[in-house]
Amino acid sequence: MNHLISLKKLSVSEILDILRDATRLKNGDEYKFNSNLYMTNLFYEPSTRTKISFELAQRKLGINIINFDINNSSMQKGESLYDTVKTIEAMGIHSVVIRHSMEQYYKELIGGCNISIFNAGDGCGEHPTQTLLDLLTIQNEFGSFEGLAITIVGDILHSRVAKSNAEILSRLGVKLYFSGPKEWFDDVCEYGTYIDIEEAIEISDVIMLLRVQHERHKPGQEYLMKNYHEMYGLTLDRERRLKTNCIIMHPAPVNRGVEIDSRLVECKRSRIFNQVNNGVFVRMAAIKHILQHKYGGNFIESSNKKWQSIV
Amino acid sequence: MNHLISLKKLSVSEILDILRDATRLKNGDEYKFNSNLYMTNLFYEPSTRTKISFELAQRKLGINIINFDINNSSMQKGESLYDTVKTIEAMGIHSVVIRHSMEQYYKELIGGCNISIFNAGDGCGEHPTQTLLDLLTIQNEFGSFEGLAITIVGDILHSRVAKSNAEILSRLGVKLYFSGPKEWFDDVCEYGTYIDIEEAIEISDVIMLLRVQHERHKPGQEYLMKNYHEMYGLTLDRERRLKTNCIIMHPAPVNRGVEIDSRLVECKRSRIFNQVNNGVFVRMAAIKHILQHKYGGNFIESSNKKWQSIV
Amino acid sequence: MNHLISLKKLSVSEILDILRDATRLKNGDEYKFNSNLYMTNLFYEPSTRTKISFELAQRKLGINIINFDINNSSMQKGESLYDTVKTIEAMGIHSVVIRHSMEQYYKELIGGCNISIFNAGDGCGEHPTQTLLDLLTIQNEFGSFEGLAITIVGDILHSRVAKSNAEILSRLGVKLYFSGPKEWFDDVCEYGTYIDIEEAIEISDVIMLLRVQHERHKPGQEYLMKNYHEMYGLTLDRERRLKTNCIIMHPAPVNRGVEIDSRLVECKRSRIFNQVNNGVFVRMAAIKHILQHKYGGNFIESSNKKWQSIV
Repeated sequence: MNHLISLKKLSVSEILDILRDATRLKNGDEYKFNSNLYMTNLFYEPSTRTKISFELAQRKLGINIINFDINNSSMQKGESLYDTVKTIEAMGIHSVVIRHSMEQYYKELIGGCNISIFNAGDGCGEHPTQTLLDLLTIQNEFGSFEGLAITIVGDILHSRVAKSNAEILSRLGVKLYFSGPKEWFDDVCEYGTYIDIEEAIEISDVIMLLRVQHERHKPGQEYLMKNYHEMYGLTLDRERRLKTNCIIMHPAPVNRGVEIDSRLVECKRSRIFNQVNNGVFVRMAAIKHILQHKYGGNFIESSNKKWQSIV
Repeated sequence: MNHLISLKKLSVSEILDILRDATRLKNGDEYKFNSNLYMTNLFYEPSTRTKISFELAQRKLGINIINFDINNSSMQKGESLYDTVKTIEAMGIHSVVIRHSMEQYYKELIGGCNISIFNAGDGCGEHPTQTLLDLLTIQNEFGSFEGLAITIVGDILHSRVAKSNAEILSRLGVKLYFSGPKEWFDDVCEYGTYIDIEEAIEISDVIMLLRVQHERHKPGQEYLMKNYHEMYGLTLDRERRLKTNCIIMHPAPVNRGVEIDSRLVECKRSRIFNQVNNGVFVRMAAIKHILQHKYGGNFIESSNKKWQSIV
Repeated sequence: MNHLISLKKLSVSEILDILRDATRLKNGDEYKFNSNLYMTNLFYEPSTRTKISFELAQRKLGINIINFDINNSSMQKGESLYDTVKTIEAMGIHSVVIRHSMEQYYKELIGGCNISIFNAGDGCGEHPTQTLLDLLTIQNEFGSFEGLAITIVGDILHSRVAKSNAEILSRLGVKLYFSGPKEWFDDVCEYGTYIDIEEAIEISDVIMLLRVQHERHKPGQEYLMKNYHEMYGLTLDRERRLKTNCIIMHPAPVNRGVEIDSRLVECKRSRIFNQVNNGVFVRMAAIKHILQHKYGGNFIESSNKKWQSIV
């Protein structure tokens, strides 16, 4: 496989391989490619953590990053995504990470381009490395996925996180629930059941909060936004009623006081910043997974063997 | 010579040396400078390929790149180009690549600055590394330049590509023609003859299409823009009438359906993406040519000797 | 100490240590950390020299730089500085350089964040590495500080340079004076005496010009701006009356013809571009000073022993 577009095309065993490599890298082993590789990160939508996280992953793998500043590029002259990516390929760059507001932007690229593409978010579509970091966070916590009760709360309709996560979590044996405003549901629900937020609070092992994406909403839903925290958010009171080992996740950036009370962002149950940390390692593992077949590479064991006792 | 401002100041033999080095680098040899060099790329006009191409060339030469984000710089406080470049020099940066909308922006720099300057485009002036990559593309195709019939089609008046190319192509023994709207001619024509597009199609070994630069045109030429493709563009029909070995070139980004039918951009005759690829290697060779005298450096032969059979 | 926020927290002996290391680095010795470090530069206000200077310092120390483009970041989604910095920390980045328009922006960070913070300017507050480069420039010139007469001229009220410099210069034994429009004074003056510009010209060993910051001024001071050069600026005539060894400093970017006659920017007395050069080395030394305790590191002596004769 030449691209990482969607986790749907990966088997459970491939996904577990990526998570195992990520854990190995997190615990100190390094991975080096045999060739001197070059990558570019094309972000057509704002992002802090995904872009920086990919850059860090690339650097730690010894990959050279060629900067591409969208605001100062020929895109302003109306160049198409296809021509831009084809140009990057013609330069001799080996792989590109793309975030774009158009769902399935990659369809026009695959076929025409040989360069390896990593999807870092396609509109309301998918965001596979975000899903991988969520999986790693859950695996680090519970050891396995089978039988866990996980509730995704919020803006499911506009969330690439929800869509990417639902399909693979259900393949991994998770009991998947959705909660939040009923107005924001769609067919992703085939993978789980809608439940009331108060029920979700009581039965879940993992509460995955989704970001309320103000920028994606249409008029007429102002009442939802205004009362979101009280109606569906993780309030101090709801946090107190969570199961003892229940953890809180959020893809960030957090709207403090909307999806979650500001005082809970760094509470004991919160794995929000662990998710950020895990993001670097799953991206390293994902890049290794896709590019190792073309370019070869090897793990270099850390002198500190901490990881072996963990994996 | 401390700067690469214009190819007019290079002899034919120096230009052929740069092309030979570029071919050597393209075929696998490496070049390393003796010092740890730092370069900055100052692009005051949007660009994808030139900026990325220079970055790749610098990285492959082992040069450190210090990023300079124009939009977030003191230029917003009104600092002059001279003071900006002088500051970069004072930092200890060894060389700077500049693209600027002002023709001959470099005149105020040379004399006051010791830092080596690479001109990556000065308004409607020149763009020497673009010319070099065009030359490499032609040389790779035909082996030499003597006697080739080359027609430059289009917006010659506003094109730094046309101006840079015309002078050196005529010194290299090319029979140079121009075609496209007569309104867009000027004294660059001293190096060649204006011919009708249909004649150009029949006699040329190389058709060099120029980008129609909507942003540089004045009102009153709307009829040209509207009918450009049919009147002067490379249509499917015209492509069929080209000479058997005729190649198509374009500096890109292409206006698909204007200068060229979209279906021809990746056709067999098209060298558009080869030009992009060659750009990296001529820039490496140009940087070597200018900086080797000050800083020294050496070729490292590739274990794979492919290039030797070619040069 | 984990951060470089203000020079007020450093003893004179620590400051002299940093200057000595900077001189050593300027004269050819290198410094390498024992770990593979990553830094990010967060500039919420435009800057050329400070950002590039920090980048060069980091590169020369072998530190990896992870780019952070504010304009294309989640800050546009309203993420707080605290959450942004906490995210950078969670990624595993070791240290961050911050410039922000809010005075004492760092107060909300320290305590919650473990990542090392370098203050590159907080509103009208401080700018410690600018002060360090000013100190190095003066030390390089006069050998010591004791008894020197230094006048800071200009926009003291809005200048983080003036505030950072005044306190430490007075600790170092300098006789400190202020000049320029009386309207622009405040309690920084506790460290020195206000004198007329003509007196300053005659008694000073160092004239430190401050940038007139048009963007920070309120209406009603137009008369000052219009007549600034004649009333308080360094005119050709005033330059002729300076003491024989008096030097001219300016943090730049210079408003030519306002604070200083354009023809004096590169005159013999001017140290404006030397300051820029010194900036790289004091930043290297400051980074070493803060991070060496956590990560370890060593000087590598240059084969060329020039520095030993100087220190």
